[in-house]
Amino acid sequence: MAQDEFSLIRQWTSRSDGQEGDGLTVGLGDDAAVFTPGHAMEVVACCDAMVETVHFLKTTMSPSDIGYKAVMSNISDVAAMGGYARYALVSIAVSPNWSPEECSQIYDGIYQACERYGVRVIGGDTVSAPDALHLSVTVLGEVEKGRAIRRSQAAAGHTVFVTGHVGTSAAGLHLLLQEKNGASSSSGVWRELEIAHQRPLAQVAAGRLLLASGACSSLNDVSDGLASELWEIAEASRVAISVDAAQIPIREDVRAYATQVNKDPLEWAFYGGEDYQLVGTVESNKVDEIAQKFASAGIPFAVIGRVEAKSEVGVPALSLIQDGLQLPLPKAGFNHFGQRG
Amino acid sequence: MAQDEFSLIRQWTSRSDGQEGDGLTVGLGDDAAVFTPGHAMEVVACCDAMVETVHFLKTTMSPSDIGYKAVMSNISDVAAMGGYARYALVSIAVSPNWSPEECSQIYDGIYQACERYGVRVIGGDTVSAPDALHLSVTVLGEVEKGRAIRRSQAAAGHTVFVTGHVGTSAAGLHLLLQEKNGASSSSGVWRELEIAHQRPLAQVAAGRLLLASGACSSLNDVSDGLASELWEIAEASRVAISVDAAQIPIREDVRAYATQVNKDPLEWAFYGGEDYQLVGTVESNKVDEIAQKFASAGIPFAVIGRVEAKSEVGVPALSLIQDGLQLPLPKAGFNHFGQRG
Repeated sequence: MAQDEFSLIRQWTSRSDGQEGDGLTVGLGDDAAVFTPGHAMEVVACCDAMVETVHFLKTTMSPSDIGYKAVMSNISDVAAMGGYARYALVSIAVSPNWSPEECSQIYDGIYQACERYGVRVIGGDTVSAPDALHLSVTVLGEVEKGRAIRRSQAAAGHTVFVTGHVGTSAAGLHLLLQEKNGASSSSGVWRELEIAHQRPLAQVAAGRLLLASGACSSLNDVSDGLASELWEIAEASRVAISVDAAQIPIREDVRAYATQVNKDPLEWAFYGGEDYQLVGTVESNKVDEIAQKFASAGIPFAVIGRVEAKSEVGVPALSLIQDGLQLPLPKAGFNHFGQRG
Repeated sequence: MAQDEFSLIRQWTSRSDGQEGDGLTVGLGDDAAVFTPGHAMEVVACCDAMVETVHFLKTTMSPSDIGYKAVMSNISDVAAMGGYARYALVSIAVSPNWSPEECSQIYDGIYQACERYGVRVIGGDTVSAPDALHLSVTVLGEVEKGRAIRRSQAAAGHTVFVTGHVGTSAAGLHLLLQEKNGASSSSGVWRELEIAHQRPLAQVAAGRLLLASGACSSLNDVSDGLASELWEIAEASRVAISVDAAQIPIREDVRAYATQVNKDPLEWAFYGGEDYQLVGTVESNKVDEIAQKFASAGIPFAVIGRVEAKSEVGVPALSLIQDGLQLPLPKAGFNHFGQRG
C-alpha cells in the first residue's frame, strides 16, 4: 500500500480519538495504550487471526463482515471465560488487491462490533501484505478476580448445555459457497442463514449469567464446532461426555435447508463451528435455577448431555446418543455422518 | 499447513506450560488468558506485525531472528511508555513454504526474547496463510499508575536526548542486502552491524530510569528512524525540535562501513529505523542528574538537541543544525542527504 493510503487508515481509526477516560489513561496514537482494570477485576486477554482464502473469501464475506467477525470472535472468547470485553488492538496487513474503500469498510465492521459490545479500539498496526489480507485482533476484557470460568472443572454428574442454536453458521456458509459456485441466489429465502455466518453474536450476557450462578464448571465458545469444543472440555477436565442427538438445538430453517441440499444438520452442528454460542457444564442441582434465569433474560439454554467419569482406555471422551445407540464422536475430520466433506 | 503440523506448534508452545502464578491466573490453553497487574500498576498494551517480503526476507533474517524481533519490537514500545513487559500473545500465519523446523525456530526466537525480558507467552493463534508468513505480536506490560510517559509534554527549553547509537540497524540491513545481491560476505568484519539489525535490544532499563527521574516530558522508541520519531514528538507536543548533526551518536564501525559503500551514516540514523533506542525530551535543569544516573547504570545517554517554541507557519517542526546551517528535516521520504535511495 502506498503512503497516502496509510494516511487514509489513520483517518478511519480517528473514530478512536478522544476515547480516554473510564479506566483508559492513554488511548490510540502513542507507542502503547495504558489502562486500569476495574476494582477487583482481572484482565482477560485473547487473540484471533483471520486470513483471506483460509478463513473467508471476498465472495462469502463483505469487507465490513470481515472486520466485524474478527472482533466478534475475540469478544466471544472473553465471554467463554465469563467476562466482558473492553478494548481491542487491531493488526491489519493489506494487499494491493484491496481498495482504500474496502479497507474503510473493514474498519466500519470493526467499529460496529466494538460499539455493539462497548469495546474501544486502543491500538494496533497497519502494514502491507504481498497478497492475502490478514486481520489479527487482540481483545482485552475483564472478569471478577478469581472467578474466570475455565474448561477444566467439569465433573461426573454435571449437566452439559448450550446457549443457543448450533450449525446455523455452517448452513449459511454452505449456502454462500453454493451461490458462489453458480447456484441461483437464495433471494432472501435463506438470508437468515447467511447472516448467521457473516454477523454472529458473542454470548456475553449468557457468560455473565453463568459466572453469576457460581455453578458453571466449564465453558467454551463454539468457534470450531460442538465436537471439538466438547472434546476440549472432556480432555481438560479428564471426564467423558455424552450428548443426546435429539436435544441438539438446530433451527427449523437449517433443518429445511439441510433436507433441500441432502445434508445432515447434525454434521453442521458438530463440525461446522463459528456459531459463537457457549457450550459447557453446570452442577446438575442448579440446572433448573439457571434455566429459569436464562428464560427470564430471554436467552436460549438447552440441556444436551451429561458428564460421566473418564472412560476406560480406548473409549472416546465424547459420544453421541442417537436412535438408542451410543456412538463415539471424534474431535474432527472423521466422516461420522456419512455425508461429510 | 496440515493438521499434524499444528500439533507440532502446540508442542512448541508447551514451553508455556505450568506458567501460572505471579499475577497470571489462567495461562496459555484456554479461550483466553487471565491476569492481574501488580498493585498500583496500570496495563500497557501494544501490537506490532511483521510480514515476509515487507519487513524481512529469509535471506536477511533467520527464523529465530524473525520471532525474536517481532517480540522485541513490542517490548520496545512498552519501554517507550516507561513500563516493562510481562505477557505476549503471538498470532502466526504460516504458508506452505515454511517447514516445521523453521516454525520451531521462529518460536525459539520468540521465547529467547521473552526469557531475556521476563515475558510469558499467554495466548495467540496459529493459522495457515497462502504465501507470506505473517507474525503479529501483542505485548502487555505494566507501568506505575498515572506515570506512563507520553509523546505530548515536550516544551520549549527542554533537552532532546537519545539512549544509544542510531543508524546501526540500517547499516546492518544495507550490508545484508548487498550480500544477498552477490557481494562477497563480510566474513565477520562487519558482523556486529548485522547483529544490530537481526537482534536489537529493547531499552527497558533506560525507560525505567527516565520514568523514575520524573523529568522526562516525551519518549518514543526508534522503530522508524530518528526523523520520524522526533516529528511525532514535535507534532504531539506542538513544539519545534532542532538537533545537532555533530551530536548524533553513530558507531565508528557504522561510519567506516558508510565510507566504504559511499553512504552518509546520518541518512541511516534519521531514516533507517529499527535501532529500538529511546529518543525523547527531558527538563533541562535535570539533564546532568539524569546523565549521571545513566552513566552509573552503564547505559549510553546523548544530548542531541533542543525543544523550541512552535515555529511559524511553513517552518518545519524538525530541523538539523549542520556545518553552521539550520536545515529543515522532513519526516520521511525526502532525499535530504543527496545519497538516499
